[in-house]
Amino acid sequence: MLGQFITLEGTEGAGKSTNLMFIKDWLAAKGIDLIVTREPGGTEIGEAIRAVLLNKNYTAMQAETELLLMFAARAQHLKEKILPALEQGKWVVSDRFTDATYAYQGAARGMSFERIAEIENWVQQGFFPNTTFIFDLPIEIGMARVASRGGETDRFEQEKHDFFEKVRSAYLQRASMAPKRYTILDASQPLEQVQKAIVNRLEEMMLAVEKMA
Amino acid sequence: MLGQFITLEGTEGAGKSTNLMFIKDWLAAKGIDLIVTREPGGTEIGEAIRAVLLNKNYTAMQAETELLLMFAARAQHLKEKILPALEQGKWVVSDRFTDATYAYQGAARGMSFERIAEIENWVQQGFFPNTTFIFDLPIEIGMARVASRGGETDRFEQEKHDFFEKVRSAYLQRASMAPKRYTILDASQPLEQVQKAIVNRLEEMMLAVEKMA
Repeated sequence: MLGQFITLEGTEGAGKSTNLMFIKDWLAAKGIDLIVTREPGGTEIGEAIRAVLLNKNYTAMQAETELLLMFAARAQHLKEKILPALEQGKWVVSDRFTDATYAYQGAARGMSFERIAEIENWVQQGFFPNTTFIFDLPIEIGMARVASRGGETDRFEQEKHDFFEKVRSAYLQRASMAPKRYTILDASQPLEQVQKAIVNRLEEMMLAVEKMA
Repeated sequence: MLGQFITLEGTEGAGKSTNLMFIKDWLAAKGIDLIVTREPGGTEIGEAIRAVLLNKNYTAMQAETELLLMFAARAQHLKEKILPALEQGKWVVSDRFTDATYAYQGAARGMSFERIAEIENWVQQGFFPNTTFIFDLPIEIGMARVASRGGETDRFEQEKHDFFEKVRSAYLQRASMAPKRYTILDASQPLEQVQKAIVNRLEEMMLAVEKMA
């Protein structure tokens, strides 16, 4: 049986990391064999590409360069890690995937969705996640959460409020175009409420997989 | 007046580096304002990508990843360095460009020319060099020259004889398809002979540019 591919998307401070661990533990407790991973990165080579992408000295990076680096890391991630795990029947849970490219490199940096789709099709050839959770939150709340964590910011985190508003809108727009694949989570709610909605969706997925088996 | 874009291609040990300097000095002596550069790399970000590409520990690198990294570096190189220089009327001389991608990632690694052309068109949108010099040499002679230099080999230089035969054939094949753009140089000849052929072509280019002016 083929595994399921779940991705988590959202702006900074929306709770992706916390809930990635929650999903991992919840699925593991149900006896599901899974791996958790992240983008950009997820493999040794992908993490080396991530280091180039996030280097905050690289302010001269062109939009095309950024997009191709994202997909270079993704191609490696797919072939080396995601597809082999799914073929073994494992579930794969990834902190970000291609929706992030449409939101960040597309909506926020201004590259057309059509141009992105050309590279997406070249790399993924029709492959996409079974379920995508979108952690949706007003930008100022997310930014306040990130600031309270402290630590260094990377090349993306240094962007302005307006940049993240575009990212947020793009996620909601993509979700509205394929509502079956996406679950929008109101991340301003108490964590319990958010996780209740996550569990609902995971239970649906497990039922659907059992029916297919 | 728009500058001219010259690229140098060939297998290892065919004399690209020596002749890059020769071309630079020859053009400069004619009063031509020019820059010399190289691929993969040519910019700070491109050189960081080059370091990922050439890292010999990355034996798990997928063909798609390698191709996208090459073009990520190239997109940066074009927008940040090559196109601005040409627009200022400078000549640009690059050690390798897209022909190398067809030869190495295409013919030698087995990716179809059609798949490469999709990414080439996405990045370059019809842009290509005015003149490409192909330094052609039997593989064993080139390899012996490289070995006599000593030093560490990178991820590409570690490939086997057959790999470089495919690279060499691909260069010759591409040249045969667009003979006006390419000048094939028999790099097994004495250096003087090779450079005489280079000068012939450079003089033709200068005449053509003067006519256009």
